Amino acid sequence: MSQNTQIVLRERPTASIVDAMGQSDSTFEAKHIAAATAADLKEGEVIVKVEYVSLDPAMRGWLRDARSYLPPVQIGEVMRAFGVGTVVESNFPGLAKGDQVAGTLGWQSIAKLHGRFLEKKQIYPGGSILDFLGPLGMSGQTAYWGIFDVAKIKAGDVVVVTGAAGSVGSIAVQLAKLQGCKVIAIAGSDDKCTWLKQQLGADEALNYKSPTFKADYRQMAQKKYGYIDAVFENVGGEILDLTLLCLKPHARIAFCGAISDYNNPKPQGLKNYQTLIAMRGKLEGFIVMDYADRYAHAEKQMAQWLADGKLARKFHVVDHKLPNATSTLESCPQALNDLFAGKNVGKMVVKVQS
Amino acid sequence: MSQNTQIVLRERPTASIVDAMGQSDSTFEAKHIAAATAADLKEGEVIVKVEYVSLDPAMRGWLRDARSYLPPVQIGEVMRAFGVGTVVESNFPGLAKGDQVAGTLGWQSIAKLHGRFLEKKQIYPGGSILDFLGPLGMSGQTAYWGIFDVAKIKAGDVVVVTGAAGSVGSIAVQLAKLQGCKVIAIAGSDDKCTWLKQQLGADEALNYKSPTFKADYRQMAQKKYGYIDAVFENVGGEILDLTLLCLKPHARIAFCGAISDYNNPKPQGLKNYQTLIAMRGKLEGFIVMDYADRYAHAEKQMAQWLADGKLARKFHVVDHKLPNATSTLESCPQALNDLFAGKNVGKMVVKVQS
Repeated sequence: MSQNTQIVLRERPTASIVDAMGQSDSTFEAKHIAAATAADLKEGEVIVKVEYVSLDPAMRGWLRDARSYLPPVQIGEVMRAFGVGTVVESNFPGLAKGDQVAGTLGWQSIAKLHGRFLEKKQIYPGGSILDFLGPLGMSGQTAYWGIFDVAKIKAGDVVVVTGAAGSVGSIAVQLAKLQGCKVIAIAGSDDKCTWLKQQLGADEALNYKSPTFKADYRQMAQKKYGYIDAVFENVGGEILDLTLLCLKPHARIAFCGAISDYNNPKPQGLKNYQTLIAMRGKLEGFIVMDYADRYAHAEKQMAQWLADGKLARKFHVVDHKLPNATSTLESCPQALNDLFAGKNVGKMVVKVQS
Repeated sequence: MSQNTQIVLRERPTASIVDAMGQSDSTFEAKHIAAATAADLKEGEVIVKVEYVSLDPAMRGWLRDARSYLPPVQIGEVMRAFGVGTVVESNFPGLAKGDQVAGTLGWQSIAKLHGRFLEKKQIYPGGSILDFLGPLGMSGQTAYWGIFDVAKIKAGDVVVVTGAAGSVGSIAVQLAKLQGCKVIAIAGSDDKCTWLKQQLGADEALNYKSPTFKADYRQMAQKKYGYIDAVFENVGGEILDLTLLCLKPHARIAFCGAISDYNNPKPQGLKNYQTLIAMRGKLEGFIVMDYADRYAHAEKQMAQWLADGKLARKFHVVDHKLPNATSTLESCPQALNDLFAGKNVGKMVVKVQS
């Protein structure tokens, strides 16, 4: 009988997650249980062998016991995560053994869930199943709807993308360029900035860890580019506060994430919020799931851009086992902290192997 | 030769304005100059005897030497202010002696300006020229477009109005009620709250100076009303920060003003801004002047509501002269501070008399 490794929530973090497992204050713990078999399947259920699981900044919010767009993950529950995998048993008419699927599989090696929560995926020419966690999955959908529907960018706009070397930001940068915008990308290392300019076509890239970042950013946004039309905002905090001083009249901020403040029990807050009045600016939060009925449209468009070589994707694949671990899944908590520390370039995933 | 009393900007304030005049740090000073006469008029110019000048929270922003929707008032310039008055001399084809007009007349007793900057006003049955500084002027226009165009309220919405006993807030409350909304009004005294409930029809009114305000507000907005659909925001600061915790999904905040923070050189900032993501909320600043091409529509609608007795207006008229003053205009700086202290109920104006 095969084994299912699960990473479950043990204790809610108050600041950063405690990624070491097996300690008295660990956020997560690993469980090893017998995997479901065909005999366990109810009507409509499917068993999926998970191949890759996703690591996303939004996960920090799912750990918080607060009202939000999804219920919090409960203590003892498998950590919620998007993932891709292969059907190994199916009691659902639309899915057969061998089908490749994407869905909310959780941090586990074998998932049993109802087939209606899974999407069968055909791999596009030149692509891989991983694309459905990147440009053709939630990351891509988030960038697409944020850029086009919330920020409403148009050719010639000056667009700022923060967290620009991340999974969503790196796609947002490219979508804005495809539309003929000027893009100022903000990221956390000189290497990321080089990648953003040389590979993704950003007009400018600024390292927010540089000691002159604040002055450089204002100088560039205000003086060199004559203020900002639109923002794809992933980081919040101080950088968003600076951005508020750089808005053109009627600027739109697509507020996707605030990774800089997720682990902060006492965010310092946006002090420059009054400029939203003077500039008639709009700070608008959005959640990609609200666009579910239009995912197919964006996926088709993005697949075409991938096929045409107009859209680059980059994955940061974690595939190492920690000492004494039985599965790479046990690296997930550490990898999530690495994400908050900005150690990734592009989409961060864990390749599931026991 | 008649005299023109002008209140001019002497020194920019760093926190609250210094309203006492004739001191070394006074924000304003009074000047008494010869009034313009027919002989001074160029082609198209008009001389207006000012009857009432307006006092608005936005004035604090006009004193700040910063990029905004209007250039700052310059040192030595007459303080910018809306006003109403009577034409005494005209070299402009559309205006004749005796016409009643509204415009940016400034804090002065006699204004000389080009006729194209004035609007000729007919007093509606049952009304007075003062209405054009209240429901039929900028206050009314601001409430109207904020409620209908920015907050996009609809029948059944739970709407919060802050600064609800002020000139704009008191109209916003009534417009939301006219549309069939539930209205929670927030103001700064029990008397104001009584007025809001008994005279303006607010469903609830909360005094933010009450020691239990924070808990009362959250209890009411979250529990009793099941969270908020829309907000007409006049005060910013701590109350807006609390409001952010009370939003329904897809809530709209029409961000009109932040009077609580205008005098604050170091605003504490919005700490709960991340809920805009989880709730897909929108914080959208607006400036009434952007609606200039639609003012006539709103004025006509509001005049009808006034005529039908569906809209109440209240003016707080300052008509006293300070000791040794030659004109009530010298009361303007003090009255502006009274506005920030919330001493008014309804629209605050100074009746101009020497």
